Amino acid sequence: MVGYVVYGRGSFNQLEEIIEPHRKKGAPVIFLADHFFNSHPLINRIPVDGKDKIIFADVTYEPKTTYVDQLAQELKEEFGTVSGVVGIGGGSTMDLAKAVSLMMNNPGSSADYQGWDLVKFPGVYKVGIPTLSGTGAEVSRTTVLTGPTKKLGMNSDFTPFDQIILDPELTADAPANQRFYTGMDCYIHCIESLTGTYLNEFSKSYGEKALQLCRDVFVKKDSWDAESDDKLMMASYAGGMSIAYSQVGVAHAVSYGLSYLLGTKHGIGNCIVMNHLEEYYPEGVKEFKYMVEKNKIVIPTGITKGLSDSDFEKMINVSMGMKPLWENALGPDWEKIMTRESLHILFEKL
Amino acid sequence: MVGYVVYGRGSFNQLEEIIEPHRKKGAPVIFLADHFFNSHPLINRIPVDGKDKIIFADVTYEPKTTYVDQLAQELKEEFGTVSGVVGIGGGSTMDLAKAVSLMMNNPGSSADYQGWDLVKFPGVYKVGIPTLSGTGAEVSRTTVLTGPTKKLGMNSDFTPFDQIILDPELTADAPANQRFYTGMDCYIHCIESLTGTYLNEFSKSYGEKALQLCRDVFVKKDSWDAESDDKLMMASYAGGMSIAYSQVGVAHAVSYGLSYLLGTKHGIGNCIVMNHLEEYYPEGVKEFKYMVEKNKIVIPTGITKGLSDSDFEKMINVSMGMKPLWENALGPDWEKIMTRESLHILFEKL
Repeated sequence: MVGYVVYGRGSFNQLEEIIEPHRKKGAPVIFLADHFFNSHPLINRIPVDGKDKIIFADVTYEPKTTYVDQLAQELKEEFGTVSGVVGIGGGSTMDLAKAVSLMMNNPGSSADYQGWDLVKFPGVYKVGIPTLSGTGAEVSRTTVLTGPTKKLGMNSDFTPFDQIILDPELTADAPANQRFYTGMDCYIHCIESLTGTYLNEFSKSYGEKALQLCRDVFVKKDSWDAESDDKLMMASYAGGMSIAYSQVGVAHAVSYGLSYLLGTKHGIGNCIVMNHLEEYYPEGVKEFKYMVEKNKIVIPTGITKGLSDSDFEKMINVSMGMKPLWENALGPDWEKIMTRESLHILFEKL
Repeated sequence: MVGYVVYGRGSFNQLEEIIEPHRKKGAPVIFLADHFFNSHPLINRIPVDGKDKIIFADVTYEPKTTYVDQLAQELKEEFGTVSGVVGIGGGSTMDLAKAVSLMMNNPGSSADYQGWDLVKFPGVYKVGIPTLSGTGAEVSRTTVLTGPTKKLGMNSDFTPFDQIILDPELTADAPANQRFYTGMDCYIHCIESLTGTYLNEFSKSYGEKALQLCRDVFVKKDSWDAESDDKLMMASYAGGMSIAYSQVGVAHAVSYGLSYLLGTKHGIGNCIVMNHLEEYYPEGVKEFKYMVEKNKIVIPTGITKGLSDSDFEKMINVSMGMKPLWENALGPDWEKIMTRESLHILFEKL
């Protein structure tokens, strides 16, 4: 788990005080910020000192192993080593920061470590500062990376951040659509895990709390306010913690297929799929549609229109490969329920 | 925060696998177990190896700094250093294990470190395995110790356990009264913090979850079962996490006075006080009394009968000294509401 957690409005201002004891002589701190913040006033509040560097991360696409390797290589060439990596942004930036930190101290390519417990050495000191709430990447034990052969994280005990700073003020500026899609990542995760077959009281407690907070924000409230930011940030944290002993389900399994072929981002991809899952999550989909309408969000449709048979095959292959997700959702006999044909029909609807 | 958390029925069996990488040559692991387990079958499941030692901790009274110092001194004399300390028991044992671990690597007496951020060096590797649920000591940043001049913890970043093992099977055997009193520590904490003036969304989320789990166990259920153990263990964990940004209130402030003078243990002390706090927590006390009745628990009364005026003065002094607790409960003008006279009347009722 993350060793140090600070939560509070304005806690971003404690960043210098927090990283100062971790500065090593001659080794800068690297601030990896979502390119969204390129000319945002937040940048002026970053405590840049000496050789410290702000890198604007290109998160147009979700992080690739090649991008992680390139960033780590450039830092090694320029500085030898660094005192730490501070990620400031959404889920993609969180995952990039975690992966770059690990690759500063591990040989080879990040693609070599996609899997479980393959990472050999701890990374450099790493701090996560989320500016979007919902992914849970700030507390998770993984980094989702697209590699040459798979989309899979570097899951390890070395992967979680050493420190996270949860400042709900930082999410106030996010575009409403983006905020909704990312918040729904948390909501959908909760529906999938709480109705799934893999669950214990630890994950159930966190999942129920995250779900309730999502409902407070997207169902009960009539407009977005500071409390919405406070609550959604806690929902994301609790949702991330609940992953420890639970698993996602149909929406995530199908959305990975979309993402692999079309590059559809995780949050919106889950929404596109959830929109058509009445059969699997009747109550959850009903509430999801209510939240979409109430929050005046448009969920794209027709995104698989015109794709070739071989494209559908690719998506089905990726999706069918997510065995634990299907087993969690549909039980040990899932292959009898979700055949390639029924999955093809589902992809056609999206 | 605790870096490594394992939750699950039967997870105690993973103890050897978990501690093995932390064993240092020639330095034993010390298992500090509540003396309750002296001839309990759990003892045979402790993975004792080589020079490892099981010490039965005398928790008749809550931990004293003198006892912590004595245990650490004996271990230093016998072994020089140890690979780790594993605490197995309730809140007192958890606190003892944390304090002994710290005193293996810090000079002087544990009384020197009662306060905030006074501990200088990390302790030896420490593992907490609770066998009673409710105190939150398994996740807290403190150890409550009775010293020569004060009852105060060693609050520091070095205090939390490195690892906790949350195995709800271990709480199944606890005596029903003890289980109730300790569970109420969590319930009362939640009532105090959720109605208090110090609270943010982080602590509120955890506090609400802990409260709901306590209600599931003590209000909704008609008998004790495995799910009760599962839920109360998560309630304790969530209650402990909620302490980060919240504070307790009247019940704790008054119960510290009892404990200081009479040695009343924390769980039962809180219950004795809560029984008479209708004025401060009307809803909470009503529900508390319902739980007492439903669970057929006897709360002692008349414990301050026959005490001298100077005894009452001592209890009032200790209790009035808990400024943050009173301020949390009654606001900045608390001294106008809770005078020495009204506190005297309250102590007389107990």
